[in-house]
Order: sequence, then structure tokens, then C-alpha cells
Amino acid sequence: MLEYKVAIQNKTTQAKEQLFLGVDGGGTKCRAVIYSASRGWLGEGIGGPANAAVDIQQTQDSILQATYQALTNAELEQSQIGDLIAGIALAGVNIPSVQSAMEAWQHPFSQMFITHDLKAACIGAHKGSDGAVIIVGTGSCGYAVVGNEELELGGHGFPHGDKGSGSWIGLEAVKHSLEAVDGIAASSEMSQAVWGRFQDTSDMITRLNGAKPREFASFADIVFQAAANGDENASAILKEGAHYLSVLVRKLYCLRPPRISVVGGLAHRMVPWMDEDVKFMLEEPLESPQQGAVYFAIKKVGGQIFNGHKLISA
Amino acid sequence: MLEYKVAIQNKTTQAKEQLFLGVDGGGTKCRAVIYSASRGWLGEGIGGPANAAVDIQQTQDSILQATYQALTNAELEQSQIGDLIAGIALAGVNIPSVQSAMEAWQHPFSQMFITHDLKAACIGAHKGSDGAVIIVGTGSCGYAVVGNEELELGGHGFPHGDKGSGSWIGLEAVKHSLEAVDGIAASSEMSQAVWGRFQDTSDMITRLNGAKPREFASFADIVFQAAANGDENASAILKEGAHYLSVLVRKLYCLRPPRISVVGGLAHRMVPWMDEDVKFMLEEPLESPQQGAVYFAIKKVGGQIFNGHKLISA
Repeated sequence: MLEYKVAIQNKTTQAKEQLFLGVDGGGTKCRAVIYSASRGWLGEGIGGPANAAVDIQQTQDSILQATYQALTNAELEQSQIGDLIAGIALAGVNIPSVQSAMEAWQHPFSQMFITHDLKAACIGAHKGSDGAVIIVGTGSCGYAVVGNEELELGGHGFPHGDKGSGSWIGLEAVKHSLEAVDGIAASSEMSQAVWGRFQDTSDMITRLNGAKPREFASFADIVFQAAANGDENASAILKEGAHYLSVLVRKLYCLRPPRISVVGGLAHRMVPWMDEDVKFMLEEPLESPQQGAVYFAIKKVGGQIFNGHKLISA
Repeated sequence: MLEYKVAIQNKTTQAKEQLFLGVDGGGTKCRAVIYSASRGWLGEGIGGPANAAVDIQQTQDSILQATYQALTNAELEQSQIGDLIAGIALAGVNIPSVQSAMEAWQHPFSQMFITHDLKAACIGAHKGSDGAVIIVGTGSCGYAVVGNEELELGGHGFPHGDKGSGSWIGLEAVKHSLEAVDGIAASSEMSQAVWGRFQDTSDMITRLNGAKPREFASFADIVFQAAANGDENASAILKEGAHYLSVLVRKLYCLRPPRISVVGGLAHRMVPWMDEDVKFMLEEPLESPQQGAVYFAIKKVGGQIFNGHKLISA
């Protein structure tokens, strides 16, 4: 019986091209890409928040949401989710409880390989070669891999870490705005726009009490907007956050990575605020973190990454 | 039938002295006091965390824990909880959902009156007269009542408000220590002691992820200790926090309150760090916030507060 099953499976595998799924989970949304070993990129999808350290169930739901959307976008059947070899990149998977919860998941994929979002971003940004990345989205962190050396910086979580990220920028904006409401800090475009999101003090307390990082990150847009209009309180926040990211870049640079990229949802908005010397060290990422997650999965099943889409079959 | 019941109740009331309960709920613990209309203070008790905005069930459990302990301390029967007219002071009761949850509580007291912890602290500190208070415990806030004017400052919650409080001090210490671990900030006694509380990075992330204010507040002690030993990173945090509290005092002073007091678990440790001009404005609280909660309950049932323990019966 078992032998019969295996024979069937092998036949099916030979008949079809091998499909890979790459997922990059972030605190605000997760992105999925479907990739064929022979035809390359087939389609992509977006799902809800996937912060595994904050909410495992939501993370898994968001991964599936993004995957089904990517299957549709790739003009594949929804049932083909079972054919996918998945590379799933998530923040927080270095936490043992998060890792074991993700590994215990009765996922619908053919195989699943989990990695840290930092590593997938780095694989994507430098097409699997040595390099360094700074991720700036809902959270922030830095990572470099050069030969056998690895360095990971920041990414300690919210509210105590992830400086310069969307959640940190939003938190600082809220802090400033509440002081302005109390008449302790100067009122400005930023503080008025933040306060405008609430009906009154009790609405503010209710909504921010125990709020998740992405809820604070939702205020970051106000800060960029106000800073662009010359609000000094807003630009002070962005400068402080970007300076921290600049310090991370310099620290990663000590490992002499061949390339350094800034990736994540706020990358393009934060780079202009970074220190001048650091801006010249940065290069555009070659591919996305979700594509990095695809390459990670391909590597895991024994395939070569960069041989013109021809894979050594698993 | 109703008339008969009322008659019985009146008889019982006349036979026994009226007992009052005052509870001051804080983010780390709650304190209860039992007070007799004729004999004054009878006993006190301490319960667990009572941050109603964070956890209603735990708040109610902690209130009962403190009350039963106070009954024991007062050499009263546990069953006498049903005789108590309770004044319950809590942070976060200005949030409508918290207020309605507390009002829906099937409490065991004879009557229950809920107020904001700020108001009970102010009633206690100035024995019901006009005045101002700064509360510095797990959270921080300021309040003044002068005639018909009231002013409330801060107390916006964690992590976006409550600057200068235990949770804020702890959060700042953790932030600094994680930067020290990454080699971005200078290592010091404080950062080493904070880091010493964790086994490794993953233990740190697990324990701080979604951690409550009081868990961050548990690091405040390290900061006071390190500052006393000359750690400049630690004293910088305390100075920044205390400066914010000083600004609150100056702001409250504009209402010309007859007295200003600092109350709460960190009051005596934070006052020495406050700005020099502000220290001279401060006076010791006359009575505790939980005693303020007793006076609040007495007022609610129509009694007079300060007539040598002789109450006009409700």
C-alpha cells in the first residue's frame, strides 16, 4: 500500500512542474509568491498581518490568505496548494515557542520550511550571495552574512526594540501628541493629525491599551506627511529613528558585506532620512524577501538557486 | 414584604457599627483598608495587580484578596465582607468599557462606589480638601481639584504615556540594555543587571513580547540601584522621567491648589530626582489613597468625612 502511494506520487511529480511558494510575513501584511522551477515567477498575493510572536493563528490565516490569492493570480487551481513546496519567512521564529507552534501547524502544503524573515530578506536582496540587510517595516532589524559569520542586530520587539520602524515612529508620534494635548509639548500638524484619529481621551486609551505594533505603525504615515510639510516634531522623530538605522548599517559594515540593502515597507521612505555617509553604502535589493523565501525552500529540497531556473530535482 | 425587609435591615444597621472598605488599585498591587464609622482604622490588606484597563477579572480577584486580608487583619469574620460599604479606586475607570464591566460585577459588598484612582489619591492626600496630586507607581498621572475646576494630566497608558512611572523607567532601561547588547550603546551596571534577568535573546523576546506595564516596572529597581551607584545611563533615565513629573507639577500649580503631594509606590524614590524648584512645592500626603477611597464611599452614602469619626448615618 505504501509503495503504491509513493509510485503514484512520483508519477504525479514527474507529470507536473514543481511549484514553490515563498511567503514573507510582516507585522502589517504578508506577501506570497508562486514560483515554478521551470517557468519562474507565476503570481503573487497579499494577506493580513503575520507577526508570529504576536498571534500564531492570525499568522497562519494570513499566510493561507496570501497563498490562495497568489494561486488565483497565477491562474492555478486553489487545490494546487497541496503541490506547493513552501518557504515561510517570519519574524519571531527564533522564539522557541513560536517555532514549535509553527512546526506543529497542520499546513496544507506539500512541504514547509520556516526561516527568519531577516534571512529570507537577505537571500532575496543579494540573490543568495553574502550581504547585509536592514529591514524597516512595522518592525526593524539588521542582518549580515559573510562567509561563516552572521550578525543579527535589533529586532527585539515592541515596545522595547525595533527603533526606527513604523511601530516605533507611530509610538513616538502618539507620545508627542498626548503631551501636546496636555499642553506639555508644542502642538503641531503631526499632533493634531494623530489626535484627529480619536474621538476623545477615553477613545484613545481604549484603542491604544494593549494595542499591537501594527496599530501604532498605522500612525507612521502621519509623521512622514507632517515632516514633508516642515513639521519639526515629525522630522525630529524620523531623524532619530533613521539615525538608529544608520548606526545598524555601520555596525553591519564592519563585517565587510559585499552589498547592503534596506528592505521592507518603509525602506524607501526612511532611507532619505538616514545619515549621509550611510546612504552611499546602500544598494537596491535584487529581489524581494518573498522571492528569498522561495530560494530558501529550493535550497532546502536540494535544488540549486541560480542556474537559469533549471533545478536539480529534489 | 419590602417594608418588613427594610425594617430588619435598619435594625441590623443600628445594632452594628457601619464598616467601610477603601481600595486603591494599582498596576502592581492593590491596597485595602477597613474603616469603622465609630472606631476609625481597623485593618488593612494587600492584593495582586488591579489594572482594570489591562485585566478586569484579575482586578476583581485582587480587590477581593486585599479585602479578605484586611478583614483578617481587622479581626473581623470573612463573612462580614457583606457588611462593607466599599469605595473602589481604580485607574482606567474613565474608559467606558472598563466602567461598565466594573459596574456589572456581582460584588459581595453591601454597596460599591467606584472612582478614579487619581481622585481617591487626592481626597486622601488632602483629607478631602482642594489640592493636587502626582501619582507615580507602575503608571503616572497628575490631578488637581480647586473649587469647581479640575485638571487631569498624563495617565494615558502604556507604552505611549505614563512617563516617569515604573513601567516607563523599566521600558527605557530595557531599551538601553538591548542597544548595549547589540554594541550600539555603552554597557553599564544597569544594562548588565537588566540583561542578567534573561537567559538569552530568545528568552528576552518571549518574556517582553506583549508584556504588561508591571512586568516592565519590575526593572525600575535596577535603575534606582544603578543610579545610586553612579551609573550615568540610569541617572539620565531617572532625570528625564522626573523632569516630566516636574512639568506636570508646574502645570497643576497654575490652578493654585492649596497643597500638592506626590503619592504612589515610587513617590519617595522619584521626588529626589525632580527639578529643584518643584521640590519646594511638594507636601507629604495626609492620608493614603485607600483611605481617600473610604472617604469617597462615606461621602457617597451621605456621611460627613471629617468630624472626628462621627458620621451622619446614611
